[in-house]
Amino acid sequence: MWPNRKFMDLLGIDLPIIQAPLAGANGAAMAIAVAEAGGLGSLPCAMLSTDKLRAEAGVIRQQTDKPINLNFFCHTPEPSNPDRDAVWKAQLAGYYEEYGIDLDTPLAAASRAPFSAEACEIVEDLKPEVVSFHFGLPAPALLQRVKATGCHVMSSATTVAEARWLEERGCDVIIAQGAEAGGHRGMFLSDDIATQAGTMALVPQVVDAVTVPVIAAGGIGDGRGIAAAFALGAAGAQIGTAYLFTPQSLISDLHRAALHAAVPPGADDQTALTNIFSGKPARGLMNRAMREIGPMSDKTPPFPTAGSALAPLKAKAEAKGAPEFSSLWSGQAAKLGRVMGASDLTRHLAEDAAQCIETLTISE
Amino acid sequence: MWPNRKFMDLLGIDLPIIQAPLAGANGAAMAIAVAEAGGLGSLPCAMLSTDKLRAEAGVIRQQTDKPINLNFFCHTPEPSNPDRDAVWKAQLAGYYEEYGIDLDTPLAAASRAPFSAEACEIVEDLKPEVVSFHFGLPAPALLQRVKATGCHVMSSATTVAEARWLEERGCDVIIAQGAEAGGHRGMFLSDDIATQAGTMALVPQVVDAVTVPVIAAGGIGDGRGIAAAFALGAAGAQIGTAYLFTPQSLISDLHRAALHAAVPPGADDQTALTNIFSGKPARGLMNRAMREIGPMSDKTPPFPTAGSALAPLKAKAEAKGAPEFSSLWSGQAAKLGRVMGASDLTRHLAEDAAQCIETLTISE
Repeated sequence: MWPNRKFMDLLGIDLPIIQAPLAGANGAAMAIAVAEAGGLGSLPCAMLSTDKLRAEAGVIRQQTDKPINLNFFCHTPEPSNPDRDAVWKAQLAGYYEEYGIDLDTPLAAASRAPFSAEACEIVEDLKPEVVSFHFGLPAPALLQRVKATGCHVMSSATTVAEARWLEERGCDVIIAQGAEAGGHRGMFLSDDIATQAGTMALVPQVVDAVTVPVIAAGGIGDGRGIAAAFALGAAGAQIGTAYLFTPQSLISDLHRAALHAAVPPGADDQTALTNIFSGKPARGLMNRAMREIGPMSDKTPPFPTAGSALAPLKAKAEAKGAPEFSSLWSGQAAKLGRVMGASDLTRHLAEDAAQCIETLTISE
Repeated sequence: MWPNRKFMDLLGIDLPIIQAPLAGANGAAMAIAVAEAGGLGSLPCAMLSTDKLRAEAGVIRQQTDKPINLNFFCHTPEPSNPDRDAVWKAQLAGYYEEYGIDLDTPLAAASRAPFSAEACEIVEDLKPEVVSFHFGLPAPALLQRVKATGCHVMSSATTVAEARWLEERGCDVIIAQGAEAGGHRGMFLSDDIATQAGTMALVPQVVDAVTVPVIAAGGIGDGRGIAAAFALGAAGAQIGTAYLFTPQSLISDLHRAALHAAVPPGADDQTALTNIFSGKPARGLMNRAMREIGPMSDKTPPFPTAGSALAPLKAKAEAKGAPEFSSLWSGQAAKLGRVMGASDLTRHLAEDAAQCIETLTISE
């Protein structure tokens, strides 16, 4: 019944849906629920310590024998730059004063680590069926070790050039991440958000450019989007924001409330790409910090350190019930969200997509 | 064989394709060719004098009895502002010097006029089956006169709020213009491009919000995109960039060459939204002016006057074979373009879409 089974057959899964790895917003529970429903569940590892990573992955292995995806960031950390840090602090000084925070408060270290030799050991021990990367691929030696475990490697392309680059380096599945997508853009050959393409334009161009299965991501929130992804030549869809509405999502109550506020008819889908929370562009619901400091700023220190200086502001504002300085990651289709468990959502999305595909060819 | 005939039946056309009105790039010939093939041909009127408009529309009426669309801009012209003009001139002064142009050269008047009582008289005389607007709708009295002719009124929405606004005011068909689209964005309730949604996210949200037929626009360059539009709930697709490749397109040789340069595999689809050529955001292929002055600038005078000061630079650069200061309008799917006549292209797009829809439901 699915128009294209390349991806499902490659991975041995039943439904053409990847639950997007939601760093900071999902752990084992969501990945297990999606896997058990027949989709590909993902464990985002970029914000986990190696101990926590091992524990979460272990829980997944205990509770499901379905294929699973471990997702890692693979950015190249830049050396710390006190001058840029000072510029960023100066940019935020007025807010520190407003919230009565000492500008010399020591900052927590950045919480997003790139794929490392230690993480690779865990991959070698756990042998996940899929390992996916964001921001390109790790260094060749590490990638070779990952591939030697027999897993399938996936990564995101935001341009045709990135898709070709990934295929040339042995990527088995390419996620074409359109500009609608929530959270961090996977871009790694360019940092210019002005030229990033939407899903409708990007997917067929990537499909034409590579031979591996292409997964559509960005702006897909229900069965219509999954059906559209197949029409564009994709072999499945990666869905993130819709899973933020599930009880398995670990987002804050404030983030959840902001997503729900975007849902009612009449409310508008107000998201933008912003670099102020990490240093790299990511899509989230508009809030005060994005509006006043960004949404894109040329004063941020390098990824992933920008968020450290915002953390005290975030804490103070959230304590007052206002997510003014919080990253409220969301794609552009939050309005299509509905509350249900991650297993039910996965099955529902697939049924909805199948029905949509069927309806498409009913002649009148 | 089409999943949704609401739009085709309303207008009495055979194919679910609107040839986007390409102001400055198409006249009667393209509109006639598309109409004769069974799609909706459009005559962009914003850059035509009333005499020229009457002549072009007359030619169309002579050469086809199929439904036709006359398209108008309906921006509210802002009073001229010498201070802002001076800021803009200062911004461009270095280029004037580089090209040896006197900074005091008198500038041509802006070439984009809003829908007027005179234009309305032509509509009343010619009675086109469809009148479409960009940037909202004209003032109620003018709109009432247009509707009194019995035509169907269409306009573009770039957000759900704009779609509701258009429906409430009597718009019969709403074009959901995703961020991928080339040329001017139809946005009129907001001027913030950061929150503009891609086609994949926008179309289903607009479909859910209104009861009139919705046409998908933006990033659609072949049958896959048209099939995807139907999957998202649209009743048809509006396609622009693909028609720029036809011999009926009036673009310059330099523009044509730039579009073709975007096509080969390996070349990337480098477009961005820019306001430097008119004062309002429009998508075009990246060039020197966009890269150096924009792509978005806060120094432009109000729409549509920004282009006047660029015109002498454009002329000099084009004379040297370089479209460095030319607006090279293009959507994000230029790479899907192919050279054929506008009639053949219309038929080919429809056949391709029908085949794509059929293929979607072939079980494996």
